[in-house]
Amino acid sequence: MMNENENTQDQELNQFEENVENTAAEADDLNQKLAESNDRYTRLVAEFDNYKKRTSKEKLELMQSAGKDVIVKLLPVMDDFDRALGHMKDISDGDAIKQGVELVNNKFRKTMEQLGVKEMDVLGKPFDAEYQEAITSIPSPTPDMKDKVIDVIEKGYLLNDSVIRYAKVVVGQ
Amino acid sequence: MMNENENTQDQELNQFEENVENTAAEADDLNQKLAESNDRYTRLVAEFDNYKKRTSKEKLELMQSAGKDVIVKLLPVMDDFDRALGHMKDISDGDAIKQGVELVNNKFRKTMEQLGVKEMDVLGKPFDAEYQEAITSIPSPTPDMKDKVIDVIEKGYLLNDSVIRYAKVVVGQ
Repeated sequence: MMNENENTQDQELNQFEENVENTAAEADDLNQKLAESNDRYTRLVAEFDNYKKRTSKEKLELMQSAGKDVIVKLLPVMDDFDRALGHMKDISDGDAIKQGVELVNNKFRKTMEQLGVKEMDVLGKPFDAEYQEAITSIPSPTPDMKDKVIDVIEKGYLLNDSVIRYAKVVVGQ
Repeated sequence: MMNENENTQDQELNQFEENVENTAAEADDLNQKLAESNDRYTRLVAEFDNYKKRTSKEKLELMQSAGKDVIVKLLPVMDDFDRALGHMKDISDGDAIKQGVELVNNKFRKTMEQLGVKEMDVLGKPFDAEYQEAITSIPSPTPDMKDKVIDVIEKGYLLNDSVIRYAKVVVGQ
């Protein structure tokens, strides 16, 4: 009986020893995984920080370069102005001067159009508060002009189909 | 003897049991910490992703709005053109027309200046490849004009002190 009892205890002891070893190995494994996970987190935090810094620098450059693109496209208009003003010195014929001005104006408009700028076409159209600002209203000259745009005080403009300036209009009552 | 032996074994067994429990508790603790660390990592990845998405959207908007700022500042120049062209229709006096053109030109230049655009002042200055592009060179009319800018074919421009267009110049030999 004593031997059997001792044997059972030995077996239990072995079993416990094994369990302790397994659990210790598991703990080692977990410790390593935890260190890895923490390390991975720390690296991601650093990466995120770098990304944020780089991004804010990029944003600044982007803002400057986007404005720059528009400005560079307008330099030829300045050239045209210079040319027109140069020619104007030598001529006094009103019509010739007018022609020169119209050339510069056309170049300027075309450049603005290429940049996505579009003049609103509102005269005679029904008043639309989404695109127009009514400065005043006057009695409609004809009944069909009621609630329509009778005059444009300041032109409205769209940039790539969104309003950059409301048209300031006079509406018929 | 048997009792003593059994006692020792019992003690050892208790010790082992305690160890197993401790190590199991440690493993539980580690498992929890690992889950937390992984969770924290996953949340940071999501945050980073959102940030990237938001940023690229912001960049696009920024690019559009930076160009927009420049364009909006140019709308009054378009208004001036409209006014000048409107007046021009009714007058034929060359000088009056010239005055109108100069007004528009001045408004345009001033607007460009406010946007940070500056015309390079190069005529008669020593040739500088950092700002100028030599289109051709001609014999210097006077000895002191050697290696200096004799003529400007196309004006050079700076935007906030960095070159946006090189001046195209003729240099004295």
